[in-house]
Amino acid sequence: MSDTQYDRDLDIAMQMADAARAAALPYFRAPLVVENKLDGGFDPVTAADRAAEQAMRDILERHRPDDGICGEEFGNKASTSGREWVLDPVDGTRAFIAGLPTWTVLIALADQGVPKIGVIDQPHNGERFIGWPGGACYQRGAERIELRNESENPITDAIMATTDPYLFEGDEGPIFQQLRNRVRLCRYGYDAYAYAMIAAGSIDLVVESGLQKYDVAALIPVVEGAGGRVTNWSGGPAHEGGQVIAAANAEIHSAAIEILKPAAR
Amino acid sequence: MSDTQYDRDLDIAMQMADAARAAALPYFRAPLVVENKLDGGFDPVTAADRAAEQAMRDILERHRPDDGICGEEFGNKASTSGREWVLDPVDGTRAFIAGLPTWTVLIALADQGVPKIGVIDQPHNGERFIGWPGGACYQRGAERIELRNESENPITDAIMATTDPYLFEGDEGPIFQQLRNRVRLCRYGYDAYAYAMIAAGSIDLVVESGLQKYDVAALIPVVEGAGGRVTNWSGGPAHEGGQVIAAANAEIHSAAIEILKPAAR
Repeated sequence: MSDTQYDRDLDIAMQMADAARAAALPYFRAPLVVENKLDGGFDPVTAADRAAEQAMRDILERHRPDDGICGEEFGNKASTSGREWVLDPVDGTRAFIAGLPTWTVLIALADQGVPKIGVIDQPHNGERFIGWPGGACYQRGAERIELRNESENPITDAIMATTDPYLFEGDEGPIFQQLRNRVRLCRYGYDAYAYAMIAAGSIDLVVESGLQKYDVAALIPVVEGAGGRVTNWSGGPAHEGGQVIAAANAEIHSAAIEILKPAAR
Repeated sequence: MSDTQYDRDLDIAMQMADAARAAALPYFRAPLVVENKLDGGFDPVTAADRAAEQAMRDILERHRPDDGICGEEFGNKASTSGREWVLDPVDGTRAFIAGLPTWTVLIALADQGVPKIGVIDQPHNGERFIGWPGGACYQRGAERIELRNESENPITDAIMATTDPYLFEGDEGPIFQQLRNRVRLCRYGYDAYAYAMIAAGSIDLVVESGLQKYDVAALIPVVEGAGGRVTNWSGGPAHEGGQVIAAANAEIHSAAIEILKPAAR
């Protein structure tokens, strides 16, 4: 896969993704007990989330006891190695409970805070998108394809995606509409899967807001390993979450930043 | 699959779906020549659309020469049998060109104008949803599951889907927002796949507008075969397209109609 210092980490990440797949899939399209984590807002937590995160933590406990863990369901474990695994066991929980095969398992390894390897796994389709410093690939069963987005599209030809156009707050909303009117077409509802499609070369731009660290950490090595760019709306680092923009090339990235900047926080 | 008069028609429909799958898949996530059918609006037509529809027409030419055909790409062939096949070779062309595995091949057989059997096929995932008078099933490889939506959810617990919240026109927009505020959550961007999820029991309600006959004909036998309801926004027949509502049960259906009725055309 690569000759980097991260080879053995990638092996661990593959084991984690396999384990999360096996843990989560039995709950997909099965009757679910959906709980509300928050009073008021709807934030579904399913048994799938917990089972998948626990399966990944078990592997880290065995093979990487000194690394930190930041997981959506079971919180933080401090690092004594300078490295941290950032886990979202089911990204796109709403898609999951709606039976839609675009939820994903997200795994990132951050070194001194910066995500270095990332995995976006879709268990039902058997699809896995993997990124590391300088490269990215797609695996499905025996199929393995190197990913490199060589799009030279300008922003007016861009295919954009965002999870939910109603998630933007305050001045983000009208600014997003400006951007939507500038691109060729916009799709909704794909969560992390849309970022994998930037790596695969079929989506050019993803713009979101209000993301958590565990929503975004795994996406960065995948998109950037395939040649794309991921930043916040000011052009700074995105790996802590918040307002995120991911683009297939530098031209689309800077054209989108130009429009979004007035609403950057 | 069933003991109805439609058994042999279902066999033909399976052959057609297999042929369409084989014809369309090579174009998925491959560099595409996207043309504009309309001046102005963006209406992509791909080689996949044409190849898939031609493959299905070839089978009908051999096995059902007297039946009519209504296809998105190659237009109408008159019926001399009172029966008509309604074909949408790639429903969700925008999802297709964005690399998202939620486009589908749609096949319906209408008898005296009324859709009796329907197929929703997702080639990349290998998923097929099939409906006939009184039944519906899901097939994926060797897996076969009978579909029956027994949801007793009220509308306030409903998971709703629509392809694009910006597709509604005039008074449809604000009325849709009322409905969106009434349900538990709303997902976007799934085209016919969302209707298959009603049959599968994981989505409760789909509301759309501006559909063509070939967008909707195949969905009706699948949703209704699994126990759901499909009508227009006034509660009348939906198989000619236009404003469409599909619901998991009668309670959700009538609650949604109550809200949508003022914008019914």
